[in-house]
Amino acid sequence: MTDLKTLETAEPGTAVALQQFLDQVKFNDQGLVPAIAQDSASGEVLMLAWMNRESIEQTLATGQVVYFSRSRQALWRKGETSGHTQHLTSLRFDCDADAILVGVDQAGPACHTNRKHCFYLKVQGDDVIVDAGSETATTQAEKPT
Amino acid sequence: MTDLKTLETAEPGTAVALQQFLDQVKFNDQGLVPAIAQDSASGEVLMLAWMNRESIEQTLATGQVVYFSRSRQALWRKGETSGHTQHLTSLRFDCDADAILVGVDQAGPACHTNRKHCFYLKVQGDDVIVDAGSETATTQAEKPT
Repeated sequence: MTDLKTLETAEPGTAVALQQFLDQVKFNDQGLVPAIAQDSASGEVLMLAWMNRESIEQTLATGQVVYFSRSRQALWRKGETSGHTQHLTSLRFDCDADAILVGVDQAGPACHTNRKHCFYLKVQGDDVIVDAGSETATTQAEKPT
Repeated sequence: MTDLKTLETAEPGTAVALQQFLDQVKFNDQGLVPAIAQDSASGEVLMLAWMNRESIEQTLATGQVVYFSRSRQALWRKGETSGHTQHLTSLRFDCDADAILVGVDQAGPACHTNRKHCFYLKVQGDDVIVDAGSETATTQAEKPT
């Protein structure tokens, strides 16, 4: 059993079986961990959503990112209604195994507001300003779905 | 009162007073929201931690990133013991105001394991592999503290 503490000081290339690793992921009391989606091409952080174990496994099995919708309490295949899918390019866990970073090839806008990303509310002095998000758009994000 | 729904379709440049916006942030039942730290220079996602309202306000007031430590149940001034501080370059909320993206100028490694970032556990086939994280290092991240 290779635990997280051992992995902290392990040499690069050290491997643990995925299923064994998933047993150590620190899902919260709702069975979820936060997952950050980052555009693989531009490096832009697109959104933060949540995954349960099943969504992680389906994401890895299908190569398309699947979250768990807290409002609908169901698996959420990103883009299943909008067409704005996320093709998985990499999936990483952090040192504590309580957060996920997915690298994605984003089809269309990532945000439900049709902005490229969800983080368009930017603090500026004593205000929060709507920032279109298109300044940081990439050709990749703009490709038609 | 400019609510989140109104902001979804607001023109770029629309402003809301920060304090009024903070009243709408969806802190969880522990009073926290997840905060992603991204290296401003390289675009690399460094870590995910948590903020309460006080840590957001202190981050903005001091220009140094302050999280809330769930294990210690106290404000956590990133780098207060390690010297690996995060100088704030931007702070953004997402469309639902339940996640934060901080742009940072990272002094030294972001991870407590002395890796550049925390997401060094990468899925590869049926395994999770320790990835040093140094492949994506930047000059900025490597500067001595």
